[in-house]
Amino acid sequence: MSDSDTSCDIVGIGNAIVDIISHEAEDFLSRHHLVKNSMSLVDEETALAIYKEMHPAIQASGGSAANTMAGIALLGASPGYIGKVKDDELGKFFVHDIEAIGVNHLVKPTSSGPPTARSMVLVTPDGSRTMNTYLGASSTLYADEINHDAVASADFLYCEGYIWDIETTKKAIRLAISIAKEAGNKVSFTLSDTFCVERHHQEWLELISGPVDVLFGNEAEFLALSGCPTLEGAIDWIRGKVEIACITEAQNGSTIVTTGHTIGIDPHQVDKVVDSTGAGDLYASGFLYGLIKGLDLKTCGEIGSLAAAEVISHTGARPQASLQEIISSELKI
Amino acid sequence: MSDSDTSCDIVGIGNAIVDIISHEAEDFLSRHHLVKNSMSLVDEETALAIYKEMHPAIQASGGSAANTMAGIALLGASPGYIGKVKDDELGKFFVHDIEAIGVNHLVKPTSSGPPTARSMVLVTPDGSRTMNTYLGASSTLYADEINHDAVASADFLYCEGYIWDIETTKKAIRLAISIAKEAGNKVSFTLSDTFCVERHHQEWLELISGPVDVLFGNEAEFLALSGCPTLEGAIDWIRGKVEIACITEAQNGSTIVTTGHTIGIDPHQVDKVVDSTGAGDLYASGFLYGLIKGLDLKTCGEIGSLAAAEVISHTGARPQASLQEIISSELKI
Repeated sequence: MSDSDTSCDIVGIGNAIVDIISHEAEDFLSRHHLVKNSMSLVDEETALAIYKEMHPAIQASGGSAANTMAGIALLGASPGYIGKVKDDELGKFFVHDIEAIGVNHLVKPTSSGPPTARSMVLVTPDGSRTMNTYLGASSTLYADEINHDAVASADFLYCEGYIWDIETTKKAIRLAISIAKEAGNKVSFTLSDTFCVERHHQEWLELISGPVDVLFGNEAEFLALSGCPTLEGAIDWIRGKVEIACITEAQNGSTIVTTGHTIGIDPHQVDKVVDSTGAGDLYASGFLYGLIKGLDLKTCGEIGSLAAAEVISHTGARPQASLQEIISSELKI
Repeated sequence: MSDSDTSCDIVGIGNAIVDIISHEAEDFLSRHHLVKNSMSLVDEETALAIYKEMHPAIQASGGSAANTMAGIALLGASPGYIGKVKDDELGKFFVHDIEAIGVNHLVKPTSSGPPTARSMVLVTPDGSRTMNTYLGASSTLYADEINHDAVASADFLYCEGYIWDIETTKKAIRLAISIAKEAGNKVSFTLSDTFCVERHHQEWLELISGPVDVLFGNEAEFLALSGCPTLEGAIDWIRGKVEIACITEAQNGSTIVTTGHTIGIDPHQVDKVVDSTGAGDLYASGFLYGLIKGLDLKTCGEIGSLAAAEVISHTGARPQASLQEIISSELKI
């Protein structure tokens, strides 16, 4: 936590999680009744039971909004992050990584309460990821831990839908949204997960028609949100509700929807999808970085595609290559 | 730890370490006065100071002999492993991984004393790895923790040179060697590191002329051991001192030396060396697996090359692909 300087281009808020990632066969999911590509909240005991059956794993910092802020830092802007860990081994690991990548971590780790959040991430042979998250300390983020100055002075706030699952953190994020709006800043939001959309459907409809300016989600999440059976229907439905909606469509690229325009963005091809964890998070990094820099929407989407392509080409949800070099060589930015 | 069944094809003994791996520019090494490609022993404070300056990292189980046993398990034989962790977070992670991969972990984690060993592994752009290891709990392996039955009943013992650095663990490994020899088993040994060779030169010369049957090392380690300035000289020097010597030569493959023969093994080409950590360990996995299965020495070396190629093509010192499938498709075994 930096007390001295909290000026950021963007502040992200979400669950601070360390990913425990293994590669598993498809039948691991059916054996544990897990829905592929989704995130399930589990208690510590269930997390341990799943871990026990997992193949050897790597541990890498994750958390959706944290991944997005990490990507923005690597692209060259100045992000801040609000997400809570305990000062245990995993928490120290998380804090090391987020600070080392150049993100201003705005919440002091706690010395009491549940341990740092962890997600058991099961990557199947097609590169899909299925997550089982024990929220631990991340669910104890209180409203009075929101750094008012940082949120008010950043042009953008980025909110993770996952954080809506806990009343405590929901209060904190609502406060952050109201601080951002009062300061005249833009609020961006990611739908996170189809089950999340279903759990919070009514509240999110109000939120999206209200303070949210920029909305991210994948095709399935937009279908769940809109209630439309087709992508075209969902595009018509969302148009005008938010200033900008970004719909990611995996190997089909993405669609940017504004009141007056629909912009198709090609995917950036990769040789092999090793692990799709973080694809949506890094798309948001690229898109928001473009907005921060005042670039046109098509270029914002293209930076998103490039950042997403980097992260799915290896295990782990944070980039391993220089995103600045990638966009400089591919887009001459 | 499995009390019920300790029958193994091979037992490995070494420092049980979790790797904390980051990709760093070359100047990180000079700034910290580190010798590229070597392993330095550091205290906890120095490990933390290096960690503080490292880029975001991943945590993955490591430890030279543990990596070798992991590779042997993935190839389909039954290895055991003697190496000590504490029952802290890193220790649980290490034990999970070694058991999940199919290695019989033969030492109970300790609940007291220093924390589980960790190595700060700095991978530079050419894929070289430079390691800074805090030995912690791994240095408290006592002779009475050597599982007599497991060592006596396995056809092979595999000893890591690194473990020679601490008097306590050296006593333990000497006991394991004497148990193996008394039972009529083969003893294999890896030179580990040029600085290790220099530190223990006289003792290792005696060991190699004595109980060691199969010796592994890279070119630089064999030059340091033999005192010869050329590989050809080192090959002549080692011939006859051990039954089989395997000299790994990075992109030039490896050379197998017996009393009567010198067998050159081609390297298995990879597109890019991402992280060379574990290359020697996995070569040993492949070679020893071949010996366990009674294959000819050339095939043993080829399995070693294939296993090494897999592990250097990604970050982390344990294989991520099925070694059984690789050798089945490449060598029809």
